[in-house]
Amino acid sequence: MPKIVDHDERRAHIVEAVTNIIVRDGFDRVKMREIAAEAGYAHGAISRYFPDKQSLLTAAFLQLYSRSNERINEGVQGLRGLDALERMCREILPFEERGGARNSRVVISFWDHAAQDDALRLIHRENNMRWRELFRRFLTEAREDGELAAHIDIDTAVNEVASRNAGWQMIAALLPDVSGDERLDEGLRALIDSFRSARSEEPVV
Amino acid sequence: MPKIVDHDERRAHIVEAVTNIIVRDGFDRVKMREIAAEAGYAHGAISRYFPDKQSLLTAAFLQLYSRSNERINEGVQGLRGLDALERMCREILPFEERGGARNSRVVISFWDHAAQDDALRLIHRENNMRWRELFRRFLTEAREDGELAAHIDIDTAVNEVASRNAGWQMIAALLPDVSGDERLDEGLRALIDSFRSARSEEPVV
Repeated sequence: MPKIVDHDERRAHIVEAVTNIIVRDGFDRVKMREIAAEAGYAHGAISRYFPDKQSLLTAAFLQLYSRSNERINEGVQGLRGLDALERMCREILPFEERGGARNSRVVISFWDHAAQDDALRLIHRENNMRWRELFRRFLTEAREDGELAAHIDIDTAVNEVASRNAGWQMIAALLPDVSGDERLDEGLRALIDSFRSARSEEPVV
Repeated sequence: MPKIVDHDERRAHIVEAVTNIIVRDGFDRVKMREIAAEAGYAHGAISRYFPDKQSLLTAAFLQLYSRSNERINEGVQGLRGLDALERMCREILPFEERGGARNSRVVISFWDHAAQDDALRLIHRENNMRWRELFRRFLTEAREDGELAAHIDIDTAVNEVASRNAGWQMIAALLPDVSGDERLDEGLRALIDSFRSARSEEPVV
């Protein structure tokens, strides 16, 4: 009887190997044969799933993205408004238990290559836009619930959330000493507080 | 009499050519001979100034950085506190008249390569830390002048300014339809307003 191969598992295993190499050596130095060695497969087994380096980088990015999405979907269950927004950002930002700077390295490499390739740019765009829609939904709920300060414009707030979440990827990857869970936490709280209307916090004296 | 060569001018001209190619084709596709062709020099004339691609990318990044610094120094003359901070961010963010997405492409390529190379990471770090010191100085002035809301923590605010300035580079390069001067302007005003104490908004009687 032929050996049964779980292709999804192999794919995930290869993507894990690529992520390790990106973090250790950088994507530009990744060679297909090193990925095979890291994953413990023959070269042919890799190229069967991923024809080139670009497709490997995309797979590594999409794996991060879909893991974040699983955590977001689970995390925001039963939450709405600013609580949901805060929880969502917590799953996107490079907190240690979500992979920290390790994942940020993959994200930054993907941005660079997406800026140079239309197909990758579309993949990035589609994913980013879905997150923006969710930010908008939670901010709109916050407005409905009277949590959002009157002066906050939702379009602007979506951009503010998106830009700082992205910027923290760079900081985690390149300036680890000014990143870290405590800083991420302080920053996220400050952001959410800047959206909150006074009457939803403490009684105004 | 031998022809007098202005080496600084040549260097700047080559860096301009590299920036053009990064924006058009992406840094990974840049070949030394194309840079020579773009700049209108012989290959030998390029390698005399820049021994490899990495040194060209570094030079393109440092050129952006030093131009931003010239504009910052000029722009903040006579300003302090939140006015100075806003003006400084205006010179860093990818507004059209400061080069827009074009410069962001160079910045993002530099981040990716800095994450893969200790020497580039140090160059990035040094420049980034100098900006953070300035953010801190202006926020401290804002506190002294009673402009900064009491609940704003300066360390956290420095990180908030730095992260969103960085994130906008990604947005400009990869999502131009949600970037642009108007969005940048709205976002920057919202950030500065979130720092401002209520009593500094109105003239103190």
